[in-house]
Amino acid sequence: MQTPASLDQLIEALRCLPGVGPKSATRMAYHLLQRDRKGANTLASALDTALQVVSHCQLCNTFSEQPICPMCASGARDSSTLCVVEMPTDMMMMEQTHAFQGMYFVLMGRLSPLDGIGPKEIHLEKLLKRAQDGLVKEVILATNYTVEGEATAHYVSELLSKHGVKITRIARGMPMGGEIEHVDAGTLAQAMMERRGL
Amino acid sequence: MQTPASLDQLIEALRCLPGVGPKSATRMAYHLLQRDRKGANTLASALDTALQVVSHCQLCNTFSEQPICPMCASGARDSSTLCVVEMPTDMMMMEQTHAFQGMYFVLMGRLSPLDGIGPKEIHLEKLLKRAQDGLVKEVILATNYTVEGEATAHYVSELLSKHGVKITRIARGMPMGGEIEHVDAGTLAQAMMERRGL
Ligand SMILES: [Zn+2]
Ligand SMILES: [Zn+2]
Repeated sequence: MQTPASLDQLIEALRCLPGVGPKSATRMAYHLLQRDRKGANTLASALDTALQVVSHCQLCNTFSEQPICPMCASGARDSSTLCVVEMPTDMMMMEQTHAFQGMYFVLMGRLSPLDGIGPKEIHLEKLLKRAQDGLVKEVILATNYTVEGEATAHYVSELLSKHGVKITRIARGMPMGGEIEHVDAGTLAQAMMERRGL
Repeated sequence: MQTPASLDQLIEALRCLPGVGPKSATRMAYHLLQRDRKGANTLASALDTALQVVSHCQLCNTFSEQPICPMCASGARDSSTLCVVEMPTDMMMMEQTHAFQGMYFVLMGRLSPLDGIGPKEIHLEKLLKRAQDGLVKEVILATNYTVEGEATAHYVSELLSKHGVKITRIARGMPMGGEIEHVDAGTLAQAMMERRGL
């Protein structure tokens, strides 16, 4: 008894999703084909569209449909401070605090040698160039206070200070091992306020 | 600060997958766009292809690319026994025991009124017609020994016996609450051997 080839291929393809093993890929494929063909169709289109139109902002490196994202293009932000975060969700959390009016740079990750994530994977050359645009006076490191986030902050700090950029780090207002995405806005705002020189 | 619309749509579309909430949909979308665009592309194609070519076998109701699936079409199986299972994975498990040489019918689910899964959703009219083809002498109920699987077996048994079909149930060789997919082949083979009349 054979599984249809196209079904096998769908199950295999679903495994590109993080955290999805063979069992849950099978369950997902069955669900889509049996109970949600409309959803499957929408998902296929959404993947195609996103692959075509989503790239990274040339300035802040976050996901963007334009070469320069709306925030970087707005002209309404303070160009003298550049806040470095790990992920777009961290940027969104920071925005919700209203404690920062400057620009961002999104690393799209954190240093993690065991996972093969080195300086190149977190776009440090792009950051170095961005920080030396002549307007940026201070780079604020807002990576997580996890082991990897701290190592990333340390590495970025070494790199940028070599090039004469002033660097600060958001204050430890968060619990040890805490991730920005899971901290309340008040704590995060205070951490931003109490940032210290490195 | 806005998330690109196409990224939002992808995150929303990923939520059609069972067990995927907003957080993990976001994580999946980031992963695909940032680290596995090839995988995302393959997934989109696999979804399109599967939606186009995968349907249900007219005889056994399992997923199939042909109107009649290879197993039903083979002519090598015993047409006098029809084994009713909940899912295609159950059929595969049963095949691995080599304890059964007859035909199958796959309900593609089990009765679950709370989830809106009634007799129609598990294709009981199709099963009734299938069981009355003049060749089937015995219908073996191999639904799970869970509450829902037992209720399904009971319901199917009532329905078919009304139409004079002989019905048996695989023996309880499995632990209470056990699912066929998770039982070892030996236990399952014994349960098949010791099936009892209902
Ligand atoms: Zn930008
Ligand atoms: Zn079939």
